[in-house]
Amino acid sequence: MNEVPTETAKWLDQVLARLDANADDGLTRLKEVLRIPSVSADPAHAADCARAAAWFRDQLAELEFDAAVHPTGGHPIVLAHRPGPPGARHILIYGHYDVQPPDPLALWDSPPFDPQIVNGPHGARVVARGAVDDKGQCLMWLEALRAWHDVAGGPPIGVTVVVEGEEEVMSVHLDRFLADNRNALGADLAVISDTLMWNIDTPAFTTRLRGNVLTEVTLRGASRDLHSGLFGGSALNPINSLVRILGALHDEEGRVTLPGFYDGVVDLTAAEAREWDALGFDESRFLGDVGLSVPSGERGRGALERLWARPTADINGIWGGYQGKGSKTVIAAEAGAKISFRLVSGQDPDRVAAAFEQFCRERAPDDATLHVEVSAAIPAHTFGGDRPWLACAHNALAHEYARPAVGVGGSLPVVESLSRILGLETLLMGFGLEDDKFHSPNEKFELHCLRKGARSHVRLFAELAGMQV
Amino acid sequence: MNEVPTETAKWLDQVLARLDANADDGLTRLKEVLRIPSVSADPAHAADCARAAAWFRDQLAELEFDAAVHPTGGHPIVLAHRPGPPGARHILIYGHYDVQPPDPLALWDSPPFDPQIVNGPHGARVVARGAVDDKGQCLMWLEALRAWHDVAGGPPIGVTVVVEGEEEVMSVHLDRFLADNRNALGADLAVISDTLMWNIDTPAFTTRLRGNVLTEVTLRGASRDLHSGLFGGSALNPINSLVRILGALHDEEGRVTLPGFYDGVVDLTAAEAREWDALGFDESRFLGDVGLSVPSGERGRGALERLWARPTADINGIWGGYQGKGSKTVIAAEAGAKISFRLVSGQDPDRVAAAFEQFCRERAPDDATLHVEVSAAIPAHTFGGDRPWLACAHNALAHEYARPAVGVGGSLPVVESLSRILGLETLLMGFGLEDDKFHSPNEKFELHCLRKGARSHVRLFAELAGMQV
Repeated sequence: MNEVPTETAKWLDQVLARLDANADDGLTRLKEVLRIPSVSADPAHAADCARAAAWFRDQLAELEFDAAVHPTGGHPIVLAHRPGPPGARHILIYGHYDVQPPDPLALWDSPPFDPQIVNGPHGARVVARGAVDDKGQCLMWLEALRAWHDVAGGPPIGVTVVVEGEEEVMSVHLDRFLADNRNALGADLAVISDTLMWNIDTPAFTTRLRGNVLTEVTLRGASRDLHSGLFGGSALNPINSLVRILGALHDEEGRVTLPGFYDGVVDLTAAEAREWDALGFDESRFLGDVGLSVPSGERGRGALERLWARPTADINGIWGGYQGKGSKTVIAAEAGAKISFRLVSGQDPDRVAAAFEQFCRERAPDDATLHVEVSAAIPAHTFGGDRPWLACAHNALAHEYARPAVGVGGSLPVVESLSRILGLETLLMGFGLEDDKFHSPNEKFELHCLRKGARSHVRLFAELAGMQV
Repeated sequence: MNEVPTETAKWLDQVLARLDANADDGLTRLKEVLRIPSVSADPAHAADCARAAAWFRDQLAELEFDAAVHPTGGHPIVLAHRPGPPGARHILIYGHYDVQPPDPLALWDSPPFDPQIVNGPHGARVVARGAVDDKGQCLMWLEALRAWHDVAGGPPIGVTVVVEGEEEVMSVHLDRFLADNRNALGADLAVISDTLMWNIDTPAFTTRLRGNVLTEVTLRGASRDLHSGLFGGSALNPINSLVRILGALHDEEGRVTLPGFYDGVVDLTAAEAREWDALGFDESRFLGDVGLSVPSGERGRGALERLWARPTADINGIWGGYQGKGSKTVIAAEAGAKISFRLVSGQDPDRVAAAFEQFCRERAPDDATLHVEVSAAIPAHTFGGDRPWLACAHNALAHEYARPAVGVGGSLPVVESLSRILGLETLLMGFGLEDDKFHSPNEKFELHCLRKGARSHVRLFAELAGMQV
C-alpha cells in the first residue's frame, strides 16, 4: 500500500498554499514563454526555438536543477536533473517547448504569440498558440516544482526533466537523444502533461495511445503545367489521378481499404465496452461544439470506440494546380497530399506504410511519377492495469477533484520511445479540455485547469514519494 | 470565285516588303506591350490592364483608326474603327491584351514581364508571359495593318478592332459589351489569331471549338480546424470527402461518369476519321515534348478524336489543410477544387453544370456544407465547310506556305459570343505552336511564326477585298 511519508505530508498544505499565492507570478511566467514563437515546423523560427529552450533551462536552474540545453540535428533539447532525498523515488518529466504553426492567421481573434486573458464560461482563460499544447501544461509541473522548492527546499522525489523542441514535427531527434543519454535518464516512472481531462470537473489518465503513420504523396505528370484546352483528353492530369487514388481509401462503410489494415486489431471486450458506455460520452455535444452533427468514421462502432480504439486514415492536406481567384484552365504538372494513419494496438506501422505505398503504386497511371514519403511509423501503446503509480495518481487527483479520474484514449508518440529506449512506463496526466483548440486558431487553456493541474502535480509528487513497487 | 481586285493586287508586294522592313520596329513594339503585366485574374494588376488597353488604343490611333477605351464592369475594352474603300468588305478583328497569371514564378528562366530574345531550333523566339497568348498574335495583324497603312494609306477592307482584357477570366463583360455596341460591330466576318498552327511549316484553321463549363466546389465540415488525434474517427474530414466525390468523376475507361454527360455527343463520321488519320498526328511526340508517354483520356478513341471531338473533365486546382513542410495532424475545416468540363457539339452546358452539382450533392456527407459555383457554361461550336472566307484564307496561306492549311480542333469561347450576339462567323487563323507554353512558365513565340503570320494577314486582307459571298 502506498502512503505519503510523514516528512512529506507535513509540508503539503504549505506547498499548496504557496502555489496558490504564486498564481499571478506563474501566469506572468507563462505569458513570457507564450510570447516566443517557437514553431518547430518552420525553419525561420529556429532562433525562437533556441530562445524557448533557454527559457526552460533558466527556469529549472532557478529551482536548483543542474540544467543544460543540448544541441541535436534539429531544435535543441533541455535536460535538467535534481536529486531527491536519499533513497527517494525518481521521475522523468517530459514536455515540449515547440508549438504548431499558427496558420490560418486570419482566424485568430488576437495575435497567436501575444497571449490574452479572456473570460469564458469557466472563468478566465489564456489564449495563445501553445497555451495548452504544451507550454501551459509544462507550467503546471514547473510551478509545482517551484512551490516545493520555495517551501521545502525541493520536491520529495528526484526529478529529471526533458523538454524537447520537435514534438510537433514527430520528435525526429528525440530517440537518438534518449539513446545517447540513457544513463542520465534512469527513473521509476515518466510523467507527461500533454493530454486532456474528461471534462473540467473530471480528471483523466490516458491509458490507450494510438500510433501514427505519417506520409506525403506526390504525383507528377508532364514536365510543366499544360493548357487544358490544348492537352485535355490526351495528357495525364495528376490531380485527377491523385483524387482517384485517395478517393478509394475508404469504403462505403467508412472502413479503410488498405489490404491488411485491420490485421491484428482486436475488438473491445464486453467489459471495456460496458465501461466506456458508462462514461456517458455525448458525441452530439462533442461534435456540436465544432459545428458538426453527424458522426463520421466506421459505421456500426460506438463513438468512443471510433475515437480511441479504431484506426483511421485522414488526409491532412492536399494541393495542386491553380488555387487563386477565378479560373485557370490548366493541367498541373504535379499534385500532392499529406495522409496520416492513426493506429491502434496490434497494427504494425511498417506494414501499414508499405501497404499504403503499394496501394498508391497500383492505382497510379503508368505515366505518372509517384513519390510516397513515410516520415513516421509509430505503433500504438496500451498500458495501465493496477500499476502502483496509477494508484498514486488516483490518490493525488482524488484529493483535488470531487470525481474520480477516468482512463481514456489518446495519441502521444513519445510514450512509445520512452518505453522502447528507456524501459519506462508513462503516467499521462493532462489537464487540457476538448474545446481548447489544440493545433487550431484561438488555442486556449483555462486558468482553472492550470491552477488545479499544478495543485494535482504538487500532490502527485507527494504521493510518488511514498510509492511502493 | 474570289479574286483579289487589281487595285489591291498591285500594292501587295510593296506592303509585304514594307512589313519585312519594319520587322525590328515591330519587335520593339511587341516587347513594349509584353512589359505590361496585364494579369486579368489579379485585381492588383487592374492599372496594368488599363495601361495595356491604352497601348492598343494608341497603336490603332496611329494607324488612323477611330479608337477608344471603353470601361466595363471589369477591365476595359478597346474598340477601334477604320472604314475601307467605298463598297469594300468589312472585318471584325478580335484580340485580348490580358494574360494568364505567371505563377509558378520559380519555373521561369527569365522574369515573365521582361521579354527576352532567345535562340531555339527554329531561330530566335521571344520569351514572356503573353508572347503567344495573345499579345504576340495581336501584333501580327497590327503590323499587317501598319504596313498597309504605310504603303497604301490603309487596308483594302474596312476593319473594326475589339481588344478585350478579360479573355483569361472567361470574358465576363464581353457579351454585354457586344450586345450594347451591336450597331458599331457589323462586319462580314470575324478574324481571330489566338490559336495554333499544325506545325511550324503547316498553317491551320480552327474549325471545331470545344465549349466550357467552369466550376468551383467547396466542402466545409467543422467550424474550425481540428486535431486529428482528438477528432479522427468522429469528425467529418472534408478533404477525405472531396477526393471521394471527385475521385468518382471518371470510370475505369476514362469516361466521365456524370449522368447524361455524353447525351448529344456524336461520333466522328468515317470521312472525318479518315481525314484526321491522314494528318498523321504523332501523339507520342506530342506527349513526349512535355515529358509524357502514355495517352490519358477515354480508352478506344483516336488521339485527335480525344483532343478535338470528345468532352473531358479536368480538375484544374485543389486545396485544403496543411500544405507546408513537415506534418500537421489536422482535420481541415474546408477543402475546395476547381473543375472544368470541355464540351463538344451536342452537349448542353447548363445540363452538364446541373448534373455536376447534383453529382456532388448526392455524394457529399450529410454534415458537410457543399457549395458549387458555376462561373461559365459555354457550348461548343463547329463551323467551316466551303465558306467563301475559308477559301480566301486558304489562298492567302497557300501563297505564304508550301503546305496547305489544315482544319483542326480547339477552344475559344468568344467565337460562340460573336455568333450568338453579332451573327458573325469567325476565321480562327492562329500561328502559335504546340510547344509555345500557353499559360505556362517560359511562354514563347517564334519570330519566324510572328513574321509569317503577319505576312499571312497582309495577304488575307487582300484576299478578303475580293471575297464573293
